[in-house]
Parts: sequence; C-alpha cells; structure tokens
Amino acid sequence: MKILLDAMGGDHSPKAAVEGAILFANNFPSSQVTLFGDHYAIHSFLTKNSSHPKNVEIVHCAQKIEMNDSPLSAIRKNPEASMLVGLRALKAGEGDAFVSAGNTGALMSGSLLTLGRIPGIHRPALATYMPTSSGGAVMCDVGANPSPKPIYLLQNTLMAVQYTHILLNRPQPSVGLLNIGEEAGKGSHFDRKVHEMLSLVCQNFKGNIEGNDILKGKVDVIITDGFVGNIVLKFGESVFDYFFTMLKKNIGISLLSKIGALLLKSALRSIKRELNYEEYGGAPLLGVNGIVIKSHGHSSAYAIAKALESAQKMVAQNLHQTISERLAAMNSTLAEHPELTENGEMQKK
Amino acid sequence: MKILLDAMGGDHSPKAAVEGAILFANNFPSSQVTLFGDHYAIHSFLTKNSSHPKNVEIVHCAQKIEMNDSPLSAIRKNPEASMLVGLRALKAGEGDAFVSAGNTGALMSGSLLTLGRIPGIHRPALATYMPTSSGGAVMCDVGANPSPKPIYLLQNTLMAVQYTHILLNRPQPSVGLLNIGEEAGKGSHFDRKVHEMLSLVCQNFKGNIEGNDILKGKVDVIITDGFVGNIVLKFGESVFDYFFTMLKKNIGISLLSKIGALLLKSALRSIKRELNYEEYGGAPLLGVNGIVIKSHGHSSAYAIAKALESAQKMVAQNLHQTISERLAAMNSTLAEHPELTENGEMQKK
Repeated sequence: MKILLDAMGGDHSPKAAVEGAILFANNFPSSQVTLFGDHYAIHSFLTKNSSHPKNVEIVHCAQKIEMNDSPLSAIRKNPEASMLVGLRALKAGEGDAFVSAGNTGALMSGSLLTLGRIPGIHRPALATYMPTSSGGAVMCDVGANPSPKPIYLLQNTLMAVQYTHILLNRPQPSVGLLNIGEEAGKGSHFDRKVHEMLSLVCQNFKGNIEGNDILKGKVDVIITDGFVGNIVLKFGESVFDYFFTMLKKNIGISLLSKIGALLLKSALRSIKRELNYEEYGGAPLLGVNGIVIKSHGHSSAYAIAKALESAQKMVAQNLHQTISERLAAMNSTLAEHPELTENGEMQKK
Repeated sequence: MKILLDAMGGDHSPKAAVEGAILFANNFPSSQVTLFGDHYAIHSFLTKNSSHPKNVEIVHCAQKIEMNDSPLSAIRKNPEASMLVGLRALKAGEGDAFVSAGNTGALMSGSLLTLGRIPGIHRPALATYMPTSSGGAVMCDVGANPSPKPIYLLQNTLMAVQYTHILLNRPQPSVGLLNIGEEAGKGSHFDRKVHEMLSLVCQNFKGNIEGNDILKGKVDVIITDGFVGNIVLKFGESVFDYFFTMLKKNIGISLLSKIGALLLKSALRSIKRELNYEEYGGAPLLGVNGIVIKSHGHSSAYAIAKALESAQKMVAQNLHQTISERLAAMNSTLAEHPELTENGEMQKK
C-alpha cells in the first residue's frame, strides 16, 4: 500500500505534512508514503526528526498552489504543483490514494481533470464527519455542488453510505435527508423529489431530518446539497469556538470561576477532543476516479496522519469497487421507474 | 396601545400566556393586553395571581389550533380558534399587534388569509434574533419561504433591516448574504443574482458571509432563504443543548469536576442567558399587513412578556410605515435597472 501526500498544501505545510507522514509511517511500517513538494524544505523537516523512516520518500515538485489561489487559473499556471504532480502519480498507478490539506477548489478541479469520475457518477461530492450524541455521523455534500440535481443526491447517498460503513464501522448506515420538517411533503419541489427517489432506492432511508436532529445522531448519514452542507459545517465549526470564547469571557476575573475552570479542565479537554475534526481523517472527494482525501486546511501533523490512515482504510476495503457495484444495482432499480427519473433533471438553484 | 395575545398557543398555554400578559401589563400600566382563548381556563390562571391587572381583558374563543395540526385544514375546521379570532380582531382595528406562541404554519397562513400582505410585498418572511460575539444579529428568512425568488430576498432585506434597527437599536444595520464563499461569484446562479441586486439597492450591504461568520457578528442582518435559515436556526438551538449534555457527561462522577462545575455555575448561567431566545421577543412575520409576532413554542411567561414588549416597540416605532416608504424608494431604484429585475423571477428550487 502506498499513499501519496501533498506536502505543500495546508496552513502548516510542509511541517505538518512531513511530521504527519512520519507519524503514519512509524505506525504502519509495511505501508509507504510519498511526499510531493519542495525537496529541500521537506528534507530539512525530515532530518530534524531523529528517525527518518525508510518507508517515506520524496518526489520533488518545483511549484505549489496557494490556499487562496483561484482554482482553475492556479492549475493552469502551475502544472508542476505538488498537488497536480501527486494526482498524476495516482492516475499513473504509482500510489493507491492521494491526501492534500491544500486549496479545496483546486483539489476538486485537479482531481476531476486528472482522474475523471467513477464511471456512471454524474458529479463528485465532499463528505465529512460530524460529531453527534451517538458516536458521530457523516454529512454529504459539504460544498462540492451548491445546486445539484436530485439524481446527484441519490448517487451521493450511495457513496456516503459506503464511506460511512468504512469510516464508522456501521454495517447498515441509516440515511436522513436534511429538510425543514419531518413530513415527506416538506421543503421545496426539489426536496420532495429527492425524498421520493430516496424512498425507492435507499434501503435504510429514515426520511427527513431537521437542523436540530443533526447532533442528536438520529441517522448515520445526513444528505443535503453542497450549499446547505457547507454552511452547516462552517457554522458548526464556529459554534464551539464561540462557546469557549463566551466561557472565557464569563469566567472573567472571578477567582472562584477561575478555580472552577481549572477543575473542569479535563472535562472541557475531552469535549474539545470529541469535537476535533483531526480525529476523523479528512473529507473524501467521493465520485472522482481514485481515492482522494481533503484534509482540513488547519491540519496538524496528527490530522494528516489520521487522513493517511483513513485513505489506507478506504483502499483496503475497496470503497470504489463497492460504489461501482451498488451504482449498477441502483441504476437497474431506477430503470424500472422511468416516471421518477423523468423529472430528476431538475436543478436546485 | 393594545396588544392582542393568543392565550391557547404554545406548549405551556394558557398558563405561560396568562402569566406573561400579567407581567407585561404590570410593567406597562398604560398599555392593554387582550387574551384570546378559553375564558374559564384563562380566568382560573388570572385569579391564581394575587393581582389581576386592570389592563388585561379576555375574549372567549371556543376553539383552538393544536401545535401539530396541519395548518390549512386546522384553519378551515376551527374558524373560532383563538388564533384566528385574534387575527380578525387585529384586522378590525381592535388592537395594534398580535402575538402567538402557537402553530407557526397556521399563524403564517391565518395572517395571510386575514390580514393580507403589505401592499407591494410579494411574500412574508420570518426574522429571528441570533446571539453573536458582537451583541446579536437578525437572521431572515428562517422558514417562511424555502424556495424564494431573488426579488423576495431583496424585500426581506429591506424589512429585516427596519426590524433590526428597532429591535437592536442600530442606526444603520449592515447586511450580509449567507453563502459558501466571500467572493461575489460564489454559490449558485440564484445567489449571484441576489448578490448583484443587493449590491445595487442595499446601502449597507457587506457582501457574502459564510457559515462561520454568523456567530462572529460580522453583520447585523443575515439574509438567506427560508430553507437554509430554518436549518441553521434549528441546528444553532440544538448545538448548545448538545454542549451542555456533553459537559454533564464529561463531568461524570469525578468529584473535582463536580466542584469545578459548581464554581462555574454563574458563568454557565450567564452564557445560557445570553443564548436565551426568551430575551428577544419572538420572530415577527415580516410582510403581513399587521404587526404579528410568533413567540417560540416553548415560550415561558417571561418570553411571552418580552414578545408583547417587542410588539409594542414595533408599533410605537411605525415599522410598517417605514417599510412601505422604503419599499417605494427601492422600487424606483429597481425601475431604473430593468436588466436586473428581468431575471429576478428565477426561483430557488
């Protein structure tokens, strides 16, 4: 097993990437990691560590894509960027999966241009772990496609279910459609169409869920469009920062409160840990023809190591093969119901 | 000033409504409250209190709409429901505003059927207070219209700005469009159209904001469609419950943590208070032709009193007259730019 890693992506690159690769390589001595990026910079971080594991190698790349670059022009202007060289290596079969903490838009476009889509998949989607009261869930799409067609959400469901099965080790993940009410008729025409189609093709579909059901862990897989998913994800990430800021402010100068906070430190630390995106191995670009994982832009070495581990798990458990098989089965079901797919071309604006 | 109150709406009716009315009536002795609902039940709660204020009166209604009733059929079947009798009294000029903690859909439909819309307003919208790091903001729409047209969001902005001005006492509220990126080109065709139109007609438009900007208080008014707004609102309400549940779980059986929590009690209580929807006087149904406020279904007496106070403020500061004036000004600006309104009919699916 060989995992390819963009060493130049993310806010803390190449340090976090190199240290994450070492962490992973030491934990999985029979796996290999290839770092793509500036040889000199990577090497200086590699040798800072007492042990440069034998299963970490470097491929030098002369260019890189910045976090705030406009995706398409950055791709055009930097053909030798670490992200693109890594993706081409994946395409050429020089590795089993690719991980990057870099520019999300560039990673999405670069993956599509280099790898294409899984045959039969219309559009790729981003899936991500969400902490919940019942051990976590996966939300999909969190930003790849803000105005999908109903058929895209059906395919996203199929892919997210397989991913959740692997990530959270749940045999038959349950699925909920994020909506503004529980009843089947809720939401817009688009939402009703998706509900109708999911009821037909998704075995473990639990119907609509509402905004306040997400953290309750009512379902294992939360399906929504990339617009809503992106806003909920970012709002969720900010809400805990907001809470800790408020806690600090309200503790203020009171000595008793300060002692209280000190005594609660370990409880607060466990909460932070439970909410930590770093544990959950990044967000896969489901639907591109190759295992590609977007790690959070702020990724630490630990987060990178977890993303590499997650990529390895997806390869080992044949995520793509399962998706292709299930897709064929779903398409036959849909073919028996032409009335359903007929209006499935409607686009969410 | 006379405020009309649905005594039978909400989870704690009629107790919370009656006690809220008394609270308000005692605080504002020159104002009047009329309670609509079952005379016997209301009277029993009124007389339980030592002082039945003189400025609280009862109008008996034989029927009521339940929280989970289907709005349109409930309205058809219960013409003498407290909510509908109250709305008709508002229409007849027997009061200045109407408050209900009852069924949101029924209140929206009932208000539209009874009062109609402010002339020139296409669709009503629900606005609500959101706590933020900078003293709070207003989000609109939070559920009235899941698939609006761009022109609706323009009108919602105009109404929400006037409401924010009154509620939060901000002279020139700033406006942000909730989107999946800061740049003007982000989101779908729909979002770009709204951005373009707001840039033209909204003086204090700050462009797009993202999910993680909401709680930072980047803007005073957050504009979004009723689908996204409803999900963000409900998610936000649940996130703090989730946090407190996690805190309890993590405090667990450790004695030191328990002491810590005890010492932090007042800090945690201030946070809960700051996040409490009860302080902020419910959500107005902007755009219906009359001041109507939806108070939270879980409203306590205190929340009801605050909603009555908020209604009084909106009447005193001529919310509706200002909206009509600003609407005329906005329409003239739009008339000068026919190219903008041309495609303004597109609907968000």
